[in-house]
Amino acid sequence: MHTAWDFRYAQRTQRIGSSAIRELLKLTEQPDIISFAGGLPAPEVFPLEAFTEACERVLRDFGAQALQYSTTEGYLPLREQIVRHTARYDLHITPDNVLITSGSQQALDLLGKIFINRGDRILVESPTYLGALQAWNAYGAEYITVPMDKQGMNTAALEEALRSGPKFIYVLPNFQNPTGVTLALERRHKLVELADRYGVPIIEDDPYGQLRYEGDHLPSVVVLDDHFRNNSEHCYHGNVIYLSTFSKTLAPGVRLGWVIAPPEVIRKLVQAKQGTDLHTATFNQLVAHEVSRAGFLDEHIKTIRQVYSERRDVMLGAMDRYFPPEVDWTHPEGGLFLWGTLPEYLDAADVLKLAVKQKVAFVPGEPFHPDSSGYNTMRINFSNATPEKIQEGIRRLGYVLQEKVSGRVAI
Amino acid sequence: MHTAWDFRYAQRTQRIGSSAIRELLKLTEQPDIISFAGGLPAPEVFPLEAFTEACERVLRDFGAQALQYSTTEGYLPLREQIVRHTARYDLHITPDNVLITSGSQQALDLLGKIFINRGDRILVESPTYLGALQAWNAYGAEYITVPMDKQGMNTAALEEALRSGPKFIYVLPNFQNPTGVTLALERRHKLVELADRYGVPIIEDDPYGQLRYEGDHLPSVVVLDDHFRNNSEHCYHGNVIYLSTFSKTLAPGVRLGWVIAPPEVIRKLVQAKQGTDLHTATFNQLVAHEVSRAGFLDEHIKTIRQVYSERRDVMLGAMDRYFPPEVDWTHPEGGLFLWGTLPEYLDAADVLKLAVKQKVAFVPGEPFHPDSSGYNTMRINFSNATPEKIQEGIRRLGYVLQEKVSGRVAI
Repeated sequence: MHTAWDFRYAQRTQRIGSSAIRELLKLTEQPDIISFAGGLPAPEVFPLEAFTEACERVLRDFGAQALQYSTTEGYLPLREQIVRHTARYDLHITPDNVLITSGSQQALDLLGKIFINRGDRILVESPTYLGALQAWNAYGAEYITVPMDKQGMNTAALEEALRSGPKFIYVLPNFQNPTGVTLALERRHKLVELADRYGVPIIEDDPYGQLRYEGDHLPSVVVLDDHFRNNSEHCYHGNVIYLSTFSKTLAPGVRLGWVIAPPEVIRKLVQAKQGTDLHTATFNQLVAHEVSRAGFLDEHIKTIRQVYSERRDVMLGAMDRYFPPEVDWTHPEGGLFLWGTLPEYLDAADVLKLAVKQKVAFVPGEPFHPDSSGYNTMRINFSNATPEKIQEGIRRLGYVLQEKVSGRVAI
Repeated sequence: MHTAWDFRYAQRTQRIGSSAIRELLKLTEQPDIISFAGGLPAPEVFPLEAFTEACERVLRDFGAQALQYSTTEGYLPLREQIVRHTARYDLHITPDNVLITSGSQQALDLLGKIFINRGDRILVESPTYLGALQAWNAYGAEYITVPMDKQGMNTAALEEALRSGPKFIYVLPNFQNPTGVTLALERRHKLVELADRYGVPIIEDDPYGQLRYEGDHLPSVVVLDDHFRNNSEHCYHGNVIYLSTFSKTLAPGVRLGWVIAPPEVIRKLVQAKQGTDLHTATFNQLVAHEVSRAGFLDEHIKTIRQVYSERRDVMLGAMDRYFPPEVDWTHPEGGLFLWGTLPEYLDAADVLKLAVKQKVAFVPGEPFHPDSSGYNTMRINFSNATPEKIQEGIRRLGYVLQEKVSGRVAI
């Protein structure tokens, strides 16, 4: 059907285009496929009972207020709760530093809206979170990439990248999506020091920080930055904007995230958010506040860690058993994903085609690379499928990889 | 506090700036003020009991699925419900024509994102909905204005405006925000005919269409456009994009709206929405679907109409009694707002300053005019305050206006 809209699309829609891989991923939505392609939390760990009780209490105690328009900044007691939560990690802020967003994805969109002019270069890890690229492509962002290894962003390559004048640095230090890799402590220090030397601020995206299954908690980049600048003062300095979310601790379907930023940046974000969706759903904010009151989520997170840690271990064990030695993969200390690297003569998109025939799926790594490299990499999710499905799915995927590596199947 | 972010804002933030009037409106948030400034529905009409029951049923019947990530397009049964609702108004679409948005405001943002390049001219009524201007200013929109009178957009002036090549026309035909005015039937026909002659598509924003308190329902522009193009076929032609919302029939705090558009436009909107907030909250969509099943909202809307119609009548009566004859106002057939026009020697912002001292508030009309005209106009909301407060508030406002008109108070 042709309409008068056909020739009216904005330039920016050319870059939001759907890819061949997205078409391929549609095949992975068949119900009989064991899919490691999504980034879905396990539905088994959603606190359904606590959520149900919180809905009841909120509607009883707040009545119509829970369904009315509310402020763009977000529900003050929820922002205060985030202030207290943040203080436990040695970051001292006030509610003026907090904006509630409709999921962390909205924080990325709003930051793009207030900071990115067409052609601005953003320094990102390669690979990096696909959602950030989708959000920022719409504002005409270009990217400067710094390669990753198993210690996270390669800070030896960072200085050269900083010399080409990025607007800001975007980093996911904990159990990164897509690689599952954690930025090592000495590299966090190095990142803070170099960012200061070149006067480039940082956006730290931390959706999974609380989902650690082994090793010690590492201080956030925002905390290290504050210490670097003033060891004694203990108040937020503001050169790092920090993002997190309720999606992985409570549930993603309520769409609640938050931004920590200097008050002046928060004011700009609030103005942008007003034109974008007025405010985040009132009811959802009240319910999240109610559920997380009295430390419930702190207890609940232990269950989540236990479930995901078992699934990760089952997956790593099955990969040891079924994957050919030519394939390499990361050992994530937390989060939802691990990352596989195929021999250079294999293309992950070809492997996926064959995998789908065997009723198992993953995401090829290329779309996570702003420079379109990474054709031989793959992101594998371990949080969503049950241990039994993980065993079986990795067995099937191992079979496909063995066939591909031994060349028994034409590419 | 100065941070490394200070000099990094995008050009577009210059135009999202907060205005002097916004500062003034902050004063109107004092709890002892009778405020006609907001656009809030009456909390008394929210279907709290039905909403509470729907939450219970959704969590019991859907369990974890209600809290999981879901598709960007929106919950299919809710889209199907909208298809059936729309068919009752003689518009025949499929779920592929429907996108669920995080409130109608998000529909405006996404439409701006996919259609507006910097410098594009949008044809709007003057005055028009402030939220559309806020959404589109961020993408660098310019405006061509067509004046309003008590029959809506002046279609005699439309043709000249169309000659200057707007990208699209934006119109609120029913009980417009801010004026409360309804576009007359013959002007709707004229609009459709002229839009076709100049090949310019239309965005029809209809948040209040079901809130009519007197007179007959008028066919939507989208319906008239379809009839104009093909009287027999009875399928959606696609040159009018239609927006509506659950904010005024269910509740605004759940943030649910929808767009009806050609499938190709929906696909572009979906891609844009993916980068913006992934999807609208799953739980909220399931609950809205549950609440509006079995025709509940159709019954409930009758209560809303009754309450708002009484408030409108009380306000119109009080204005007749207390306002000086030099002030003129509209008689809205539905919606939430009416519009006052002061004598040309008065500035509504000055009147507001004095009104706030008398503990009553409204919104000066200037921000609703993209060309910064309308200094002597005012938007007055009648849905939120109780009839008693409306009486008292209009009495106070009448006093202020009498003083101003008679020159007893210096401007």
